Amino acid sequence: MRSSVGWLSRRLAAILQQELTPAAVRLELWDGTSPYAGPRPPVGTLAVEDARTLRAVLVNPHLQFGECYMHGTLRVRGELEPVLEAISRIALTPTWRERISSHFAPGNGVQRARRNVHHHYDLGNDFYSWWLDEQLVYTCAYFERPDVSLERAQVAKMDLVCRKLRLQPGESVVEAGCGWGALALHMAREYGVYVRAFNLSHEQVAYARARAAREGLTGQVEFIEDDYRNVEGEYDVFVSIGMLEHVGLRHYPSLAAVMRRVLRRAQGRGLLHFIGRDVPRPLNAWIRRRIFPGGYAPTLAEVATRVIAPARMSILDVENLRLHYARTLRHWSRRFAATADRVQARYGEEFRRAWELYLTGSEATFAAGALQLFQVVFAPVEATPPYWTRAEIYGGAQADEWFAATR
Amino acid sequence: MRSSVGWLSRRLAAILQQELTPAAVRLELWDGTSPYAGPRPPVGTLAVEDARTLRAVLVNPHLQFGECYMHGTLRVRGELEPVLEAISRIALTPTWRERISSHFAPGNGVQRARRNVHHHYDLGNDFYSWWLDEQLVYTCAYFERPDVSLERAQVAKMDLVCRKLRLQPGESVVEAGCGWGALALHMAREYGVYVRAFNLSHEQVAYARARAAREGLTGQVEFIEDDYRNVEGEYDVFVSIGMLEHVGLRHYPSLAAVMRRVLRRAQGRGLLHFIGRDVPRPLNAWIRRRIFPGGYAPTLAEVATRVIAPARMSILDVENLRLHYARTLRHWSRRFAATADRVQARYGEEFRRAWELYLTGSEATFAAGALQLFQVVFAPVEATPPYWTRAEIYGGAQADEWFAATR
Repeated sequence: MRSSVGWLSRRLAAILQQELTPAAVRLELWDGTSPYAGPRPPVGTLAVEDARTLRAVLVNPHLQFGECYMHGTLRVRGELEPVLEAISRIALTPTWRERISSHFAPGNGVQRARRNVHHHYDLGNDFYSWWLDEQLVYTCAYFERPDVSLERAQVAKMDLVCRKLRLQPGESVVEAGCGWGALALHMAREYGVYVRAFNLSHEQVAYARARAAREGLTGQVEFIEDDYRNVEGEYDVFVSIGMLEHVGLRHYPSLAAVMRRVLRRAQGRGLLHFIGRDVPRPLNAWIRRRIFPGGYAPTLAEVATRVIAPARMSILDVENLRLHYARTLRHWSRRFAATADRVQARYGEEFRRAWELYLTGSEATFAAGALQLFQVVFAPVEATPPYWTRAEIYGGAQADEWFAATR
Repeated sequence: MRSSVGWLSRRLAAILQQELTPAAVRLELWDGTSPYAGPRPPVGTLAVEDARTLRAVLVNPHLQFGECYMHGTLRVRGELEPVLEAISRIALTPTWRERISSHFAPGNGVQRARRNVHHHYDLGNDFYSWWLDEQLVYTCAYFERPDVSLERAQVAKMDLVCRKLRLQPGESVVEAGCGWGALALHMAREYGVYVRAFNLSHEQVAYARARAAREGLTGQVEFIEDDYRNVEGEYDVFVSIGMLEHVGLRHYPSLAAVMRRVLRRAQGRGLLHFIGRDVPRPLNAWIRRRIFPGGYAPTLAEVATRVIAPARMSILDVENLRLHYARTLRHWSRRFAATADRVQARYGEEFRRAWELYLTGSEATFAAGALQLFQVVFAPVEATPPYWTRAEIYGGAQADEWFAATR
């Protein structure tokens, strides 16, 4: 039986509805009524279970939307993604709370970095295998056409990275944050390079090593369970896909120092692939609590001034692939939905709902333009850039002779 | 007859030589002697005429190298470009004087901007026609292969810009700073768009209008002699090639406001093409005095935070074409050398030497990596990006069907 809604709750609901109306999202109270009176038919409904949930979401929406959704006291009726995308679009400007809190994020020292990584990446390799592609690539894919498969788009992404870096047989590559090793193995197998790949996740490294052995690539690829700050040696190429988000602003100088120390000056080059922003803003508070502790998505300017410039590198190329990440996340969400029962059986209902929200919410955020995905190619100031024109990356090989002559 | 070199001058020469030795540049005094004792054979010789020149260059090299070269009291023996490139390479880090002075640059209000533009661009259209390409394109070209002609490379640059912007027939374009109008006419002729092009240079606008009339494009292209700050209307596309260098940091908010005001939000997009830096640094003091008063080459981060973000745009794509600018400048230098007698006859020897130094020194600076050339594509946060992948720009048209469906 539905309980009644008091006077105060009606007032609070009216305030919350006022914020949601520009997104055409309808609020529904526990007695089945709604204060929605928008001009458009709503894109979906947020159903609030009780007065406590209503207050929590009103006072701290960035954290409590996710908390209440996870606990099941806030439900979405209608399709989840359009509702979240509509809300993202009306919240493109950071609030003052967000502006201030970004200066007080905890640091990710070596110990905390290890705990953060363990929190997310050591949930069990089979958990990820239920809904990622067959190679377990857990970063933005590259869809040559919007309708190609996720498997193909992940291979295309790895190959795009290799072509942007113009890998040559026999060269040495260091990879900072290598996931389950797919890129390291792709680079070694397809381009004949030698790779040392660093990762803090014990489970991922074990998986990657086993795969390298199975493919007969142990002579070319070494997986090292260690922090990026401990990278040693000298390399022709530095590559890092989806790790910068875990580094945190405060530690960019350490990353810059590593890049400066290990990359050969004369013809070195590197690529950073990361989730970014147009304007500085902390990651969503709930995402930081439940999904990515210590995470931060930087602006291009933050990366340019705090990583690339202190490493004495020039930016050669930047590509924004945010719509490709929205599409990648849609694939993951659908696969996750197809295996949701299994997830719930092992990890419980709250976990299942949290991951649904995280994957769908991320798709919505990239689709709305509140998050960006940047690939940045750079090289030491004194190095010859890896290609004469980009046409070489996209099938043209016009300047190959020029290149052969200069390197 | 050669005059003798005193004790103090010998000491000062030794200090200056010490700074030049890492570049393997040999200093020669007016008595024919040199303090050079570098391990390598020198790349060239700086010959100093008298004690006053020596002191001036030692005390304020950034300004006085150019002044003395222009006056003829400092001469370079050997080829000029390699000497300047070697010096650029050892001076990649800004000095403290440069770091401080960048905060005290004069503003470029509408009046001063007009004077600055007049200083450089109203030297006479025929002066530029002596050494630019046939269409008078006075910005970095795009060499599909390093050995194509300057004429072809300038057309390729204009077309690259159009393809990056994905111009569609019937769309409206505003161009801020249009030179002699080549790009505006190319866009209208080849892509069927309507262009309003702004420029402060009276001579350039007169030339561009005459050309539009000759080509029968007056119905599609309007050239307006006015400041970029006075742009009005609403457009699908904003483009500015080689103007940002003249705006000056202090006025970036005005530029951002213009971009925000005139670009359609739903499917607008824009491109900024400008000379940039890896780290903040004023333009060379002599270049600012003699060639580009009020000029400033920003970092990508400065443009991202002070222009793109305040205009509420997302960065979609950045390409660094610095080697293309080095090559463009080499073409200009050679053509300038071939017409040097005519230049000297009309403008005098100092002018001729100043322009030789400016063109060759710019080539050296881009070749050494002390200056960059960035093309930045951006769009309003809420707009659909102009293409699905870059393959479309470079000949592939894979996603065209997708595009037709979404726009």
